[in-house]
Amino acid sequence: MKIFDAAKAPITWEERNVTAIKGPGGRWMIPPDAKESMDSSKIGLKGPLKTPIAAGHPSMNLLLRKTFDLYANVRPCVSIEGYKTPYTDVDLVTIRENTEGEYSGIEHMIVDGVVQSIKLITENASRRIAEYAFEYARNNKRTSVTAVHKANIMRMSDGLFLRKCREVAENYKDIKFTEMYLDTVCLNMVQDPTQFDVLVMPNLYGDILSDLCAGLIGGLGVTPSGNIGANGVAIFESVHGTAPDIAGMDLANPTALLLSAVMMLRHMGLHDCANKIQTACFDTIKDKKVLTKDLGGTAKCSEFTAEICRRIRDLD
Amino acid sequence: MKIFDAAKAPITWEERNVTAIKGPGGRWMIPPDAKESMDSSKIGLKGPLKTPIAAGHPSMNLLLRKTFDLYANVRPCVSIEGYKTPYTDVDLVTIRENTEGEYSGIEHMIVDGVVQSIKLITENASRRIAEYAFEYARNNKRTSVTAVHKANIMRMSDGLFLRKCREVAENYKDIKFTEMYLDTVCLNMVQDPTQFDVLVMPNLYGDILSDLCAGLIGGLGVTPSGNIGANGVAIFESVHGTAPDIAGMDLANPTALLLSAVMMLRHMGLHDCANKIQTACFDTIKDKKVLTKDLGGTAKCSEFTAEICRRIRDLD
Ligand SMILES: CC(C)[C@H](C(=O)O)[C@@H](O)C(=O)O
Ligand SMILES: CC(C)[C@H](C(=O)O)[C@@H](O)C(=O)O
Repeated sequence: MKIFDAAKAPITWEERNVTAIKGPGGRWMIPPDAKESMDSSKIGLKGPLKTPIAAGHPSMNLLLRKTFDLYANVRPCVSIEGYKTPYTDVDLVTIRENTEGEYSGIEHMIVDGVVQSIKLITENASRRIAEYAFEYARNNKRTSVTAVHKANIMRMSDGLFLRKCREVAENYKDIKFTEMYLDTVCLNMVQDPTQFDVLVMPNLYGDILSDLCAGLIGGLGVTPSGNIGANGVAIFESVHGTAPDIAGMDLANPTALLLSAVMMLRHMGLHDCANKIQTACFDTIKDKKVLTKDLGGTAKCSEFTAEICRRIRDLD
Repeated sequence: MKIFDAAKAPITWEERNVTAIKGPGGRWMIPPDAKESMDSSKIGLKGPLKTPIAAGHPSMNLLLRKTFDLYANVRPCVSIEGYKTPYTDVDLVTIRENTEGEYSGIEHMIVDGVVQSIKLITENASRRIAEYAFEYARNNKRTSVTAVHKANIMRMSDGLFLRKCREVAENYKDIKFTEMYLDTVCLNMVQDPTQFDVLVMPNLYGDILSDLCAGLIGGLGVTPSGNIGANGVAIFESVHGTAPDIAGMDLANPTALLLSAVMMLRHMGLHDCANKIQTACFDTIKDKKVLTKDLGGTAKCSEFTAEICRRIRDLD
């Protein structure tokens, strides 16, 4: 909020607690005031959640995805100058189908000692995510989309996903389309991530690849994430944990949340504001003088924040 | 074969073509002479296979796994001195359940546009692979086993797998047991692979992680692989492709196949022989004078082989 103020972001904040409550019929749900706020503003910025907060409590991440039909998880992974990792020049985006696949939640014990989990792939969800990926590529001046799959093994389900990607690709002749096995992507990714641009894939593969790619640029502490839903709803979030060991100590690194907020501003068309904040944040990291502990410095969260604010004001 | 001769490996080779044929009832099968050879020797060394060789032809890799119940795929990933990658000191082993999970091959179209694939996890296969992993750790002086799972999502299937790992771990108090989500493993792996030792996991996760880890040490051209079956059968193999573009040109890099053969020798208890060949191979790579093209040199396959043979003789 301080940084948004410094950047004069035209944002009114509504703070809502999204901790699930039990609704009618005992079903877990997002509290009505949080739901209403999202329904009217359409845009959310979410901090890390410890979930499940207790045994029997649902995963808040999954509940939010479901409540707002957040079908696309988008994670731009871009190397940060000055923050050393084994890789440089990473600049890719993972786009994960976020509603079905291995996350259907349908499982059975067939006989004692034999369990099945069902992976559901639908034509509609596959087409929707493929279209999102190609639109994203086009709108963000990216040149290629790679569909990630295991259609050599799951011929029908991943086959369907792949077919939809191919069909959608036909409508985007300006974007190069390739297909690659998930295992091959993983191998190539750690050998040379610069060969990838936009990647689109079913749910579980996205869970894996988005974290893998975050690792390439420095981990979840510096990786932003956005969840795009039906009806224009979108929630942006840092995907790291809550770090209860340093709670209240003014030591947290706000970069992932801040960069997610930058994604949010872009999503809202507020590009000037987004650019200013991003530049100030990256310059602060590059400069290495005021960094939080996990980034290799000794600054408090508040000092890191103040430095970014100072740089934003300097940019004016 | 030349290298085994130089090392005086006490091996009699039986060469068999494993290309699938149509058996009684039209079912694809391994040719009987190949099957018999394996049944009697129990040990195979397999070169890369182009599969499927034609539309409608089955995957030979899958058929071999099935025919010999090759339930454990074992991939030691160890950094090779002199072969530069973004990582050093990688020294881990992935152990992949190789018979079930997402590879069940059971899929249905439920209604038009909705497909399900079934992931099958059984108590027996889970216990068997967990036991293999802990035995492997103990016999190879390794100190920890990590079970890789998504039991937060697939509570019943991955839950069963994880439960069996925990149970088996009880019998191996000398080995440290940890559990980790697949996404977290991927993230940590690319940040610092040296934190891992033995990893055990269901089929698809193993497909992904074994290739990812191969990437860390230089790719499939230098990564050995072993498939352990029921009844003492084992097949060792290079897992890279056939590189048809350089077929017959004496340009192939035999390292992955050779290191797989070294694994085979160890499996047979022929440790002296295995050590000699491994030392000669690694020294050749470290020395950088005689390397195949993909390793950054200009040598032919035959020259690289001759150099390894020379070094083996020098070791005597
Ligand atoms: C928290 C968990 C349900 C989740 C997932 O598996 O999708 C997490 O790994 C993520 O990527 O958001
Ligand atoms: C060829 C294919 C069937 C196979 C798999 O997916 O298991 C391959 O990727 C492997 O790891 O051996």
